Amino acid sequence: MDLKFDEKGLVTAVVTDSRTAELLMVAHMNAEAYAKTLETRETHFWSRSRQELWHKGATSGNTMKVVEVHVDCDKDAVWLKVEPAGPACHTGARTCFFTQVG
Amino acid sequence: MDLKFDEKGLVTAVVTDSRTAELLMVAHMNAEAYAKTLETRETHFWSRSRQELWHKGATSGNTMKVVEVHVDCDKDAVWLKVEPAGPACHTGARTCFFTQVG
Repeated sequence: MDLKFDEKGLVTAVVTDSRTAELLMVAHMNAEAYAKTLETRETHFWSRSRQELWHKGATSGNTMKVVEVHVDCDKDAVWLKVEPAGPACHTGARTCFFTQVG
Repeated sequence: MDLKFDEKGLVTAVVTDSRTAELLMVAHMNAEAYAKTLETRETHFWSRSRQELWHKGATSGNTMKVVEVHVDCDKDAVWLKVEPAGPACHTGARTCFFTQVG
């Protein structure tokens, strides 16, 4: 499946827990991160702040096993259902979306 | 809650069904769309293709009632839990993520 990468070569990646369906995090993927994720069945992203390929959990141990990958109707967003080995958030929280505002 | 809008003035908005937890769509919000969503409790986005504020369902009738709003740890993504009045996708599908690729 060809994706529609934006002018920076990225698509949005939405990560949910395959067991609880909870939204864990939102990140970005370039073509390499997308290919590596499908190939290794572990989440890879493009870090916009560090400008480098990011194998989630490579240093923290909090990898995510990819269970299913879906693409949206206009092919610019990817949905990853994962089994996380630990917290998704760098703060140690289970999900990055721990702040309710409304 | 102040959001961290990108250089185009946008944040990513992830929309899930509050009853089934299914991922329905990914879209973008500028400050006005975010404010209107919180104020009206119906989803508003910024259409990047049409470059205009987009009240989801204003023409189709497929509005989304906002149940909860969360913001992620770096404040550049918003999670909306909604009760959709109809299909989320312009194709008529319940979710935009109907294509499984892996």
